[in-house]
Amino acid sequence: MADKLPGSRRPGRGPRQAQEIYRVTLELLADGGYDGLTVEGVAARAGVNKTTIYRWWPDKDALLGAAIVQSALLRFDVPDTGSLRGDLSELVRRLVALMTGAASGVVVAALAAVASRPSLAWLAREFVTDRLAGERAVFERAVERGELSDSVDPELIVDLLAGAVWSRVMLRQSPVSDDFADQVVEVVLRGCADRG
Amino acid sequence: MADKLPGSRRPGRGPRQAQEIYRVTLELLADGGYDGLTVEGVAARAGVNKTTIYRWWPDKDALLGAAIVQSALLRFDVPDTGSLRGDLSELVRRLVALMTGAASGVVVAALAAVASRPSLAWLAREFVTDRLAGERAVFERAVERGELSDSVDPELIVDLLAGAVWSRVMLRQSPVSDDFADQVVEVVLRGCADRG
Repeated sequence: MADKLPGSRRPGRGPRQAQEIYRVTLELLADGGYDGLTVEGVAARAGVNKTTIYRWWPDKDALLGAAIVQSALLRFDVPDTGSLRGDLSELVRRLVALMTGAASGVVVAALAAVASRPSLAWLAREFVTDRLAGERAVFERAVERGELSDSVDPELIVDLLAGAVWSRVMLRQSPVSDDFADQVVEVVLRGCADRG
Repeated sequence: MADKLPGSRRPGRGPRQAQEIYRVTLELLADGGYDGLTVEGVAARAGVNKTTIYRWWPDKDALLGAAIVQSALLRFDVPDTGSLRGDLSELVRRLVALMTGAASGVVVAALAAVASRPSLAWLAREFVTDRLAGERAVFERAVERGELSDSVDPELIVDLLAGAVWSRVMLRQSPVSDDFADQVVEVVLRGCADRG
């Protein structure tokens, strides 16, 4: 598989049980919201000692930050299909799968926690910076292939695509048709204005 | 002002104090989440009798539904600037103002409640249907003016624009530049693919 995990460049940080601790952290967030999340609760459910968690993360926010940025549950591969259109369509399909799949409750809880607490704004920025670092390769390859002007802001394109998925899945809560990804990407690449 | 409130076609439904009851409902939702919202709490803070609320709305979900769809806090005028580009840019600016203004906590709480509870999916659909009914006029006028093919799906364009605002404001939590609206609309109208 030629795809790269956006975070796989990073050396793993955290104890051996890190992924299990992240999973439990996000589960508890999904179950009881930010207020229901405690380091004690994570330790108990993950079957590790509280001090193990505190050795790596000084407080609940640091743990939640690591879980949101590093958990495999919220990761998706960055596609490399050979064309900008193919890459963006595949990216939208993977976002739809993430938001409608088994981890969708976790995604909603993480988004809600981040969006509703100004004190977690750094976390939103870290998450987005991390993911964008992976996605940036899609745009760099497109510029190299001559498919995209280098004046185009990748952040803006990601906002449009990820936002459209969020609006359709989370807000409308309507089924996502098979051609949704292609339709969204067609508008972003070619525009919807009538040139006829 | 030539703008129309999307919901102003509707006859008002609810008691005299409806807007005050909606406001309190959304405030309590923002303060304590869905679980912290009770009809009793709304009645107490709004200074009305519990039976007044139950006369109009059979339960908490019906009240929350009415508040989200009917409250003036979550409304915004649909622009009519004379061009599709102008209308869409103004729509994006009004969404940014809604999501960054005084009611932003209420918006986040309402989105989180709707997104995290399958039992409130009807509410998301009702809200979106109501708002789209207002925004549809923007697209109909653009088709009449020859700016837009009638094969373009207005829902898709609204998903892209509203989603981009949400991603930038709620997820990145980065300041929204003055030209954000124009940049987003430029991509949606003309596309970002290099045609040079």
